[in-house]
Amino acid sequence: MVDAFAPELELVFLLIIWHSINMSTTALYPGSFDPVTFGHLDIIARAARIFDTLVLAVGAHHSKTSLLPLDQRLSLLETEVATLNINNVKFITFDGLVVEAARNHSAGVIVRGLRNTTDFDYEAQMAAMNAAMAGEVETVFLSASPKTGFIASSLVKQIARMGGDISGFVPPATARTVLKALKT
Amino acid sequence: MVDAFAPELELVFLLIIWHSINMSTTALYPGSFDPVTFGHLDIIARAARIFDTLVLAVGAHHSKTSLLPLDQRLSLLETEVATLNINNVKFITFDGLVVEAARNHSAGVIVRGLRNTTDFDYEAQMAAMNAAMAGEVETVFLSASPKTGFIASSLVKQIARMGGDISGFVPPATARTVLKALKT
Amino acid sequence: MVDAFAPELELVFLLIIWHSINMSTTALYPGSFDPVTFGHLDIIARAARIFDTLVLAVGAHHSKTSLLPLDQRLSLLETEVATLNINNVKFITFDGLVVEAARNHSAGVIVRGLRNTTDFDYEAQMAAMNAAMAGEVETVFLSASPKTGFIASSLVKQIARMGGDISGFVPPATARTVLKALKT
Amino acid sequence: MVDAFAPELELVFLLIIWHSINMSTTALYPGSFDPVTFGHLDIIARAARIFDTLVLAVGAHHSKTSLLPLDQRLSLLETEVATLNINNVKFITFDGLVVEAARNHSAGVIVRGLRNTTDFDYEAQMAAMNAAMAGEVETVFLSASPKTGFIASSLVKQIARMGGDISGFVPPATARTVLKALKT
Amino acid sequence: MVDAFAPELELVFLLIIWHSINMSTTALYPGSFDPVTFGHLDIIARAARIFDTLVLAVGAHHSKTSLLPLDQRLSLLETEVATLNINNVKFITFDGLVVEAARNHSAGVIVRGLRNTTDFDYEAQMAAMNAAMAGEVETVFLSASPKTGFIASSLVKQIARMGGDISGFVPPATARTVLKALKT
Amino acid sequence: MVDAFAPELELVFLLIIWHSINMSTTALYPGSFDPVTFGHLDIIARAARIFDTLVLAVGAHHSKTSLLPLDQRLSLLETEVATLNINNVKFITFDGLVVEAARNHSAGVIVRGLRNTTDFDYEAQMAAMNAAMAGEVETVFLSASPKTGFIASSLVKQIARMGGDISGFVPPATARTVLKALKT
Repeated sequence: MVDAFAPELELVFLLIIWHSINMSTTALYPGSFDPVTFGHLDIIARAARIFDTLVLAVGAHHSKTSLLPLDQRLSLLETEVATLNINNVKFITFDGLVVEAARNHSAGVIVRGLRNTTDFDYEAQMAAMNAAMAGEVETVFLSASPKTGFIASSLVKQIARMGGDISGFVPPATARTVLKALKT
Repeated sequence: MVDAFAPELELVFLLIIWHSINMSTTALYPGSFDPVTFGHLDIIARAARIFDTLVLAVGAHHSKTSLLPLDQRLSLLETEVATLNINNVKFITFDGLVVEAARNHSAGVIVRGLRNTTDFDYEAQMAAMNAAMAGEVETVFLSASPKTGFIASSLVKQIARMGGDISGFVPPATARTVLKALKT
Repeated sequence: MVDAFAPELELVFLLIIWHSINMSTTALYPGSFDPVTFGHLDIIARAARIFDTLVLAVGAHHSKTSLLPLDQRLSLLETEVATLNINNVKFITFDGLVVEAARNHSAGVIVRGLRNTTDFDYEAQMAAMNAAMAGEVETVFLSASPKTGFIASSLVKQIARMGGDISGFVPPATARTVLKALKT
Repeated sequence: MVDAFAPELELVFLLIIWHSINMSTTALYPGSFDPVTFGHLDIIARAARIFDTLVLAVGAHHSKTSLLPLDQRLSLLETEVATLNINNVKFITFDGLVVEAARNHSAGVIVRGLRNTTDFDYEAQMAAMNAAMAGEVETVFLSASPKTGFIASSLVKQIARMGGDISGFVPPATARTVLKALKT
Repeated sequence: MVDAFAPELELVFLLIIWHSINMSTTALYPGSFDPVTFGHLDIIARAARIFDTLVLAVGAHHSKTSLLPLDQRLSLLETEVATLNINNVKFITFDGLVVEAARNHSAGVIVRGLRNTTDFDYEAQMAAMNAAMAGEVETVFLSASPKTGFIASSLVKQIARMGGDISGFVPPATARTVLKALKT
Repeated sequence: MVDAFAPELELVFLLIIWHSINMSTTALYPGSFDPVTFGHLDIIARAARIFDTLVLAVGAHHSKTSLLPLDQRLSLLETEVATLNINNVKFITFDGLVVEAARNHSAGVIVRGLRNTTDFDYEAQMAAMNAAMAGEVETVFLSASPKTGFIASSLVKQIARMGGDISGFVPPATARTVLKALKT
């Protein structure tokens, strides 16, 4: 019977649960994912190994100038991340500040990738402004893996528009969707 | 009685323990700390909030050209970190590769601070070489906080040698030790 | 009596006046100030200590894509600079080249702030082009103070648009004006 | 008589022709040249000394936001390059990917100039993406000469729009055409 | 007679002198000048036009690893600056902190040249540390002129050691002294 | 018979030979190769496709502080390049200026690899100084391939000294030689 627990064990039991919840770190990886690239997937796979929960946050506010609408960017991200065999990711969309999205999803950490010094200058500025607004949220950076560190979503779209082969930069399903979006 | 546990609850109990141990992330912050600066303490305080355990690793192999001997660098680091009121740090010394130190202390993450693009270029190179040697260890970067992001240990020593006031860059106990070391 | 001046002293008198006028350096700090930030105020306070006169020059030609109209950017700048208690600043607007504005206001120096290497690359290019057009006007750079060096007007506006708190980046009166402008 | 060739010499003859054709390197220097500057001419003169044939490729796809129409950008480029007294250049226009233009004109090399680290970050990214798409085409970089390394087409147009003197940045005929285009 | 001054004019007279002294800005340009290059002379000529007095400060503490002894570096600097026809420079040597040298010579400004982003990263760090030590001393930067912005004293010495022609980097008298120093 | 050549064909024949020799471009790739890495081999394989002849130049003057003596660095380079199956490379050693080595081997081009902005800043400075000394020799840059762009000889040696596995950075024969050299 349940009430047969020894009281001192119940305490240990509760402490472990409390500790487990309390220490678990949720990180949020925000982006426009327009479209998701092998570079994003590299950061996602690596961040998912570091943090207990990784919230993949697709920014709605970018949608006006984006190639793909928000729901398509989200569903492509879900499709491609499914192939990574990781089970501690969640998918959200957000419209507003990244630090607000982090707070709303109890993420104490924002994850960003760094490809080069131009990225670094912009991201360090943004991280400092975010820290000024929300001191309890930390930004951590992963430097892009060599194999994917040269891929930029904006260049992928530019190449696709000119009829170039983007199969080296995005997964097949994403490539098909991008090409379809450009035709319409 | 202990054996009164409902078997299905015992399983939950074990799963929680296993999960708690398995998911806990240990990060290693390596450096020569010659001497520890407010910049290091900023990174330490922030990293300790992100990771379950933070191993502060003082590199012994730098000691030949260092101002302070290894044991003094370690004890100053312990003294100054004690003032931060964080209780999930461990202190080690290591002699060899950072990735080996990480493996030896079950750290899946190496933490490094980034102050500027010169730092970024060097650290991204080192992170990629470490990833090639030990793919299971990730390097994460924190960009230095504005208030301490201009402090460099090497310049602190240079300033102290010329009789300059280093109290804006290192804590008092460290400042005293550095000045003493320079006199002998 | 006035005409009792010894002639040789009159000459010294005139030389001192001439020297005083001739050697006084007027510097011009151009920007769009859309809106003025703590970063701008840091550069202004520091530049005003270095140069005899500091001309704060609000660029009219940026107004098409600016959030605030020219007169509002100017009056906010005047309001905020008034709090700095410096009395060697002048306020102007200009429409055209910065070097022309400098010439029109007898400024031999253009002042610019540098926050990071991306700033440096752009500003060094602009300074060299300005030097090619107007060799008598020098550009001098101040590196941004750590406490404000991460603030960018463009990000301030982006944050305000998303409902974020910009009180850490701009003074209160400016914050109110920005929020009001975004509502209309 | 032609058929009096010693057969073994005919073979040598053919081998030399084959080798000459085979080893000759064609490089393609792509750009929008809107307008051509002294910076472009510096890279052209230097690249023409290195490679057997230099294809100057004016990108048509930039024309929508360009100041000058494609044919004018091409003819100005032809006019100014004519003054360099080099005879191994060809002029083309292209609409699409740079690597496709390179393939279409049998160019194994793409030439790009580098002025600063911002250029480097962008160009290295583009070069890696091009290499992923067309491994047989190499990108080589020339660092801009000091005398012209600060000139940017975009700033030239901005200066001209404000009535500034651009004679230090572009040749006279180009300057006249730019001014004319701005008036209409 | 001298005592015939109208008292009110005496006051004006004194105010002008006081103002002239008080507002005059003294800047200090520190370096090891081992040896002085065309790059240094460019910065000196330009800084001397901006500031009332320019103190050229040769750092003694670099002398241990320097090619030329302190007195020779100073005398070469004096010789070469004499050719610039500027009369508001002073020459000093100093042993210790740059901010102390600035204080000792009533210089409110430290001048430094910037050639590229590597320079910027180092100099911005040093400037922030100097500001922390001596808030009343400002550091201002001049970006190197294109014609001399690629010259580095260290490379000049390396080239001279290998028998290279350094006449494009340093003035003739300096070149002779460097070559002589390398022979002994 | 040989004298049966039609005279006009002899002329064509000679012109082709002359053109072939005259237009052939020899490039020199200088380095200390202490030791040769996969990064060097990447640049060598790519440069050998671009230029008619590629002179691999091992700098003798670095040998004092090098791990491996000059002859060993040269022979390792020869061994590893042999595996690339390219037949237009030559191997030399040189002691002195790179531009002198280029002149001595009739190389009109110096080849250098660029991994990041720190590399770029240094190499652009060196290229400009070389151009000032030897205007007829051009420096061209290849950006490092993603797969090898993070490898640095200095870090390879540092890793090997600490007992790390360098097989991801240098070929097997080179790895063995480095390890042997470190033991003695």
